Amino acid sequence: MTRKIDVNSDLGESFGVYKIGEDDKMLKLITSANIACGYHAGDHNVMAQTIRLAKQEGTAVGAHPGFPDIAGFGRRKMEMDPEEVYHLVIYQVGALYGFCRAQDIQMQHVKPHGALFNMASSDEKLAEAIAKAIYDVDKHLILYGLSGSKLIQAGEQQGLKTANEVFADRTYQPDGTLTPRHYPHAVIENPEEASEHVLQMVANQEITAVDGSVMKTKVDTICVHGDNAKSLSFVKQLLSILKENNITIQSAGESL
Amino acid sequence: MTRKIDVNSDLGESFGVYKIGEDDKMLKLITSANIACGYHAGDHNVMAQTIRLAKQEGTAVGAHPGFPDIAGFGRRKMEMDPEEVYHLVIYQVGALYGFCRAQDIQMQHVKPHGALFNMASSDEKLAEAIAKAIYDVDKHLILYGLSGSKLIQAGEQQGLKTANEVFADRTYQPDGTLTPRHYPHAVIENPEEASEHVLQMVANQEITAVDGSVMKTKVDTICVHGDNAKSLSFVKQLLSILKENNITIQSAGESL
Amino acid sequence: MTRKIDVNSDLGESFGVYKIGEDDKMLKLITSANIACGYHAGDHNVMAQTIRLAKQEGTAVGAHPGFPDIAGFGRRKMEMDPEEVYHLVIYQVGALYGFCRAQDIQMQHVKPHGALFNMASSDEKLAEAIAKAIYDVDKHLILYGLSGSKLIQAGEQQGLKTANEVFADRTYQPDGTLTPRHYPHAVIENPEEASEHVLQMVANQEITAVDGSVMKTKVDTICVHGDNAKSLSFVKQLLSILKENNITIQSAGESL
Amino acid sequence: MTRKIDVNSDLGESFGVYKIGEDDKMLKLITSANIACGYHAGDHNVMAQTIRLAKQEGTAVGAHPGFPDIAGFGRRKMEMDPEEVYHLVIYQVGALYGFCRAQDIQMQHVKPHGALFNMASSDEKLAEAIAKAIYDVDKHLILYGLSGSKLIQAGEQQGLKTANEVFADRTYQPDGTLTPRHYPHAVIENPEEASEHVLQMVANQEITAVDGSVMKTKVDTICVHGDNAKSLSFVKQLLSILKENNITIQSAGESL
Repeated sequence: MTRKIDVNSDLGESFGVYKIGEDDKMLKLITSANIACGYHAGDHNVMAQTIRLAKQEGTAVGAHPGFPDIAGFGRRKMEMDPEEVYHLVIYQVGALYGFCRAQDIQMQHVKPHGALFNMASSDEKLAEAIAKAIYDVDKHLILYGLSGSKLIQAGEQQGLKTANEVFADRTYQPDGTLTPRHYPHAVIENPEEASEHVLQMVANQEITAVDGSVMKTKVDTICVHGDNAKSLSFVKQLLSILKENNITIQSAGESL
Repeated sequence: MTRKIDVNSDLGESFGVYKIGEDDKMLKLITSANIACGYHAGDHNVMAQTIRLAKQEGTAVGAHPGFPDIAGFGRRKMEMDPEEVYHLVIYQVGALYGFCRAQDIQMQHVKPHGALFNMASSDEKLAEAIAKAIYDVDKHLILYGLSGSKLIQAGEQQGLKTANEVFADRTYQPDGTLTPRHYPHAVIENPEEASEHVLQMVANQEITAVDGSVMKTKVDTICVHGDNAKSLSFVKQLLSILKENNITIQSAGESL
Repeated sequence: MTRKIDVNSDLGESFGVYKIGEDDKMLKLITSANIACGYHAGDHNVMAQTIRLAKQEGTAVGAHPGFPDIAGFGRRKMEMDPEEVYHLVIYQVGALYGFCRAQDIQMQHVKPHGALFNMASSDEKLAEAIAKAIYDVDKHLILYGLSGSKLIQAGEQQGLKTANEVFADRTYQPDGTLTPRHYPHAVIENPEEASEHVLQMVANQEITAVDGSVMKTKVDTICVHGDNAKSLSFVKQLLSILKENNITIQSAGESL
Repeated sequence: MTRKIDVNSDLGESFGVYKIGEDDKMLKLITSANIACGYHAGDHNVMAQTIRLAKQEGTAVGAHPGFPDIAGFGRRKMEMDPEEVYHLVIYQVGALYGFCRAQDIQMQHVKPHGALFNMASSDEKLAEAIAKAIYDVDKHLILYGLSGSKLIQAGEQQGLKTANEVFADRTYQPDGTLTPRHYPHAVIENPEEASEHVLQMVANQEITAVDGSVMKTKVDTICVHGDNAKSLSFVKQLLSILKENNITIQSAGESL
């Protein structure tokens, strides 16, 4: 029975005068921060600031590379050949690497963002390009991907450590995919229910789908969001329930 | 009498479908390539390609960070506080660092581009921000700057190796600055004349200004351009005259 | 004694997922909206939405062109020749013109933004370029500029109607310029005090500077900000005091 | 038998220091110029310059709106909902409209670019969004689209004049689509063969596909390219053969 879990969140998504997220508060709660690298969100000032804060809080950091599309926040699919995706990941991981070196901290992981994350979950070529890019920059980096996805498989084949990710506040279809957001019951809004959902996934390494069917799954890390006061309070409740149930919250770098 | 000189050029300035420069040919001639990092020119594909070619030719590589202004090619002054310049340099050096790691080569140097280069030649605060950014990413990197400028001074104070740069095809004013391009005789178009100019600078470590006055100067590297067939032929002639005069062409990393 | 005043505000400054401002509420209060055109803020979706809302509220609209610098919100000076400024204004005014035509409303005015506004207040060449661009797109457009500035003069020489602008919440130096933000007493935070300041400017067409000296000035429009609940409430108080003092709040297009 | 044909080409695709195309020469040959609007290529300086040149040559001009992706030249598919496409077309058509007004010329047409053009050929919702955007900015604009495509149909339903476009140097599949570029015989490289191909299409209003089958088709305009000396010479030959065969070369605005 797994009793350790990493909790990750997407941070550093502010841009110029535009502020989003409660990064300073989230960094006190989570164990791994996925930091935007200026392609879909973030900029060089925000990256520097987020790395500084993360170091201060002792939170592990990773790069969160996305499509070059700030206007679309990296959520729009773009047609892109695997070679360019390979380059785009190297560029963004490298850029964050610079800030890690400047602050004298190790980068722990890489998690693709948005449409790139989704496409790489099922597209083998993109998944391989991403895994190879990460390996080629630093083979000690951990690849975060949707639990059981092509991206995780590509990471393993490349020789990377991988972290299988599940979502605290989303339900699953019988085939292991997330229930699309426009379906009823796609999002779990009640913290107790979400905690129960997470507890089962972590403790039993399985997911119960919306139809009641149960899938075995590997769960190394949970993704949470902290965009506003409500979601922050959700995260706090979730973490305290996990602790009450003797689940240890620690970064993937320490566990894997 | 100095008998060694580095020859550098700005490469990797193509962008998307837009091609400029004769990078493959220049990489066979020069000893150090300044590679654009996506802010004022270049993109992740061009950077990857340029690093690959440079490795193949054994040419030393460096980052060429500029202002975030592709439309203006980084040649327009932008008002920017030193802290942001510090961040902007870390970002771009880091991004190129990623490609160097992926190709398993060492980055040799950093040379700021265009308006950033010019502003940092005389603005102490910007110069310090740039020097510190480079040092904080990798203290073994060599800082290229206008010979005798504030940028060179800031690099030395920071503890970086520095390369004092002169221009093969430009004349100088009595105060050591370049003759502005819109002045008569700003540009030396004749290769023999340029070679004579360079020979004097390299061999005697001094510059003769347009008024005939002579300044002592330190000369570690010459900047040349290879935008078209004519400029390529200029570079070839210049190099062969230098060799005939027993000047050794080698990278700053080997000499300093 | 002038008894009419236009009240303008910068709106449509959201960008992609990034939201700022309380545009829907401000549009009910002000008479003229300056709408960002995608260069320093805003995007095609935000522009469309803002024009739709303005039409609904019957608020006059104008283009708010700025430097091409979303990361810096158009607040950073950029070195740019007047010919390019001429082109940049035509582009942005044209883009907003498209949305006005699509919604079948007239564009009332143009007000440059941020660093472009400030530079054009004192730089005659930039001021002329802006005035000519506006005139060439539509000679019926009103040019908004700092009261008594070079920009206003250039507009008049070009044959445009102009609106002299003052700021409700800023103090003035004896030479008629705004007290820089980092000085003490630069910003008037008390609504009563600001209303008094505005009343004097509107009713007497004069400004009392921080040293007590009084300048004659032309006042056609007041700039207010509505970034948050506090500033919205400030605007409401200001407007109600103006009305109590028999100042008519109406758009520049109706008054001039 | 149709004896009139418009000849169009994509121009104004330079960007900043990056130059492509032989616009000044092409403008003397063609009857309609599709001008990039800054989203996938071009910028405000290039647009102004291209409009000036077109006016000088008496060549009709149109907007060439594309996806916001200069790095990909608008050739990469982007996932985008029809409402945003509607906004994106208004923005770009409006921007060029500004330059037309400033030069006191009428805009003749709009032709979507690259991936947007291709997607709108078969996607009804995108096609409708584009047609409505054009109509809402100016109902007198002519919509250029792939002959017989959904885009042409949407334009007709919207009440716009439409120009059915064929390609001089491309072969067709039996279903009326272009032979993909990576197939053998996709491109017709011989000017005589291309002229024969065009003559048949124009004179008979039909296309012979690669398998020899013949489709009735409407042909109002031919697209040609002028990227280099070779393609320019191809265009010249094509035009002279058309003239020898008594085909009148005139703009869509004059014919339709």
